[in-house]
Amino acid sequence: MNQDRRDRLRDAAIAVLAREGGRGLTHRAVDEAAAVPTGTAKNYFPTRDALLRAAAERCAERYHALAEALAEPGPQDGAGAGAGAGPGAGPGAGPADAAQLAALLAGLLRDTAGPGRTRVLAYLELQAEAARRPWLAALLDPVAAADFAAHAHLLRAAGLPAGPERARALTLALHGAIPHLLTGAPATLAAAGLDDLDRFTRELLATVCGEETR
Amino acid sequence: MNQDRRDRLRDAAIAVLAREGGRGLTHRAVDEAAAVPTGTAKNYFPTRDALLRAAAERCAERYHALAEALAEPGPQDGAGAGAGAGPGAGPGAGPADAAQLAALLAGLLRDTAGPGRTRVLAYLELQAEAARRPWLAALLDPVAAADFAAHAHLLRAAGLPAGPERARALTLALHGAIPHLLTGAPATLAAAGLDDLDRFTRELLATVCGEETR
Repeated sequence: MNQDRRDRLRDAAIAVLAREGGRGLTHRAVDEAAAVPTGTAKNYFPTRDALLRAAAERCAERYHALAEALAEPGPQDGAGAGAGAGPGAGPGAGPADAAQLAALLAGLLRDTAGPGRTRVLAYLELQAEAARRPWLAALLDPVAAADFAAHAHLLRAAGLPAGPERARALTLALHGAIPHLLTGAPATLAAAGLDDLDRFTRELLATVCGEETR
Repeated sequence: MNQDRRDRLRDAAIAVLAREGGRGLTHRAVDEAAAVPTGTAKNYFPTRDALLRAAAERCAERYHALAEALAEPGPQDGAGAGAGAGPGAGPGAGPADAAQLAALLAGLLRDTAGPGRTRVLAYLELQAEAARRPWLAALLDPVAAADFAAHAHLLRAAGLPAGPERARALTLALHGAIPHLLTGAPATLAAAGLDDLDRFTRELLATVCGEETR
């Protein structure tokens, strides 16, 4: 099995899920989206459940790669979100203060509404499928649970209060923002404060961690 | 057109969406779920978009009815969440304090994981469809936006700080909790604190509104 081709098929499964929803995910649709000969996807991922699993694992990989890239200081990242670990990457330097953490989180949300839209839409479809398929719920469970630990880690790294209640409120508010960003409905974005992502993450951190961080 | 039959068809559309996902929503599936003669759904809702619209409007109606019922004091509601308005019901008495508001919000989340599961799953499917259909996004936009205003109203009624940042953090964290409650994956529920809904809403209000409310 060729790893490049495997990744290409997994990316195609994500694209199909995002475009068609869960019920559109067939081997034939993945072959077409990946521009490979008919039968290729079935060769790599013999069942529809294997396709769903491949898409779920690829979503998680791409999310972690993005979080690590955003956490790296670099010339393209003016705010400089600190060296080291992003969400889910375990202990590391992380953002040095609240402003750097706000910039890192705004970058993740900006990706959701922009280049990462396909990945995140596919993840929402997988989440909806998981409510009907216990084995998929079990597969996604550690991915979602790790997000809470990652945000607690980031709060600590930024020198902010990081008790479980604060990490939970922050993580859930970010999760709650995602569908609104994907839909992009103007009244909801304005009501949620999501029309300005830098201000949004600064204010969310201040609300969740206390006034001293404003 | 018969209003009872119309509501029965709209409830059936919600049931089909929850069970099959967006792509499973056909006139025939709705007729079958409603146990009415073939062609009935098409008579009431001629296009698939009309079916989606009917399901969306019915979800919103049922959510508002539930919120109002939970906000009514009654013998079955030991915590007594205050008389008057629930979310979205406009100005009214509302919960009298933080404990009553926490009980009201825990009731809404408990409904999501229990009797309201079908309605909420259908709403998530509609949200995913809305990311691909601007007209559906426009239809859901005021429903989602009103939730932020409703939570600000509830915070004020309970005598809690109710600035827009706090109402946003509270609303988004509740929105973010919903898919986790529907999936019911144990590690995620524990990490999110959603394994005890009464404690969860008490702690969320304290985190979002400041220590004085603990």
